[in-house]
Amino acid sequence: MKRDNFILSLCMVGIVAMAFMSVEDINDRSMPYPEGFRKWVHIKTTLTGFGRVPQTKLDGFHHIYANEKAITGYETGHFPDGAIIVFDKQVADTARNVIKSGSRKFINVMYKDSKAFADTGGWGFEEFTGDSKTEGRLSVERQQSCFKSCHQAQASTEFVFTKFTN
Amino acid sequence: MKRDNFILSLCMVGIVAMAFMSVEDINDRSMPYPEGFRKWVHIKTTLTGFGRVPQTKLDGFHHIYANEKAITGYETGHFPDGAIIVFDKQVADTARNVIKSGSRKFINVMYKDSKAFADTGGWGFEEFTGDSKTEGRLSVERQQSCFKSCHQAQASTEFVFTKFTN
Repeated sequence: MKRDNFILSLCMVGIVAMAFMSVEDINDRSMPYPEGFRKWVHIKTTLTGFGRVPQTKLDGFHHIYANEKAITGYETGHFPDGAIIVFDKQVADTARNVIKSGSRKFINVMYKDSKAFADTGGWGFEEFTGDSKTEGRLSVERQQSCFKSCHQAQASTEFVFTKFTN
Repeated sequence: MKRDNFILSLCMVGIVAMAFMSVEDINDRSMPYPEGFRKWVHIKTTLTGFGRVPQTKLDGFHHIYANEKAITGYETGHFPDGAIIVFDKQVADTARNVIKSGSRKFINVMYKDSKAFADTGGWGFEEFTGDSKTEGRLSVERQQSCFKSCHQAQASTEFVFTKFTN
């Protein structure tokens, strides 16, 4: 009986330990909504897929914003942990010769955490649909795909495509 | 002789007084280069005159930035003195379906000072060519024209055209 209790205790300790590992693992990859990013520094704006019919998911205005730590990265070439870059992708509304940035399609976010995201160049990749702060999240496979099929090629600039110009 | 000296003194006082009035008048309308505006809040970006041949002075990307006091204005509807809004006008570089923001054509700046610019809705209007911090300044007549031929119509929003959206 005592031996059974000992084994049961061991199993419970194991289960609790696994639960904690699991929580820690999830927390390590968790990427919160980048609150207030619209008042961060504007890196640049590009318009892609103009005139393409039908428009693809990525077509439209790309407004790129960076928090203070990311600005340090743009200015020094080394992005510290805590750097966040937001790609704010909006519909291009055209009227005659004027093209305005319309409703938000989604935002893509890059979070620098060299430990948590060591397998994707130190950057976590996340997505939020429209103005939602919870919907549209990427699976781990898609997060890894963002890196492997796209950002990995930019190793010389720490996997960041854009540059900041005054 | 004493009378002549008295008249001469009066004239000199008058000339000195006029000189001071003139300096004060120039200072009141002086509009310094908006240092660091690229790190202010990005209000919006619009692309005008796309495809127009030849391009007019105003055609291209319009990136609009606002300092903290101007953000107060956008958020409350009342722009305090010290608010500054910058229109950063850049060439639109097109390659296939991608339109990038290129070199800076010029910046237009609005400065809120309800006393100094009382005759133009409380806003001063200035221009700087390309990346220059000194060239391209507007004459007083052109400053007044910015208001009368354009911004005056926007009285309901304190003569500001743009809105800030999160």
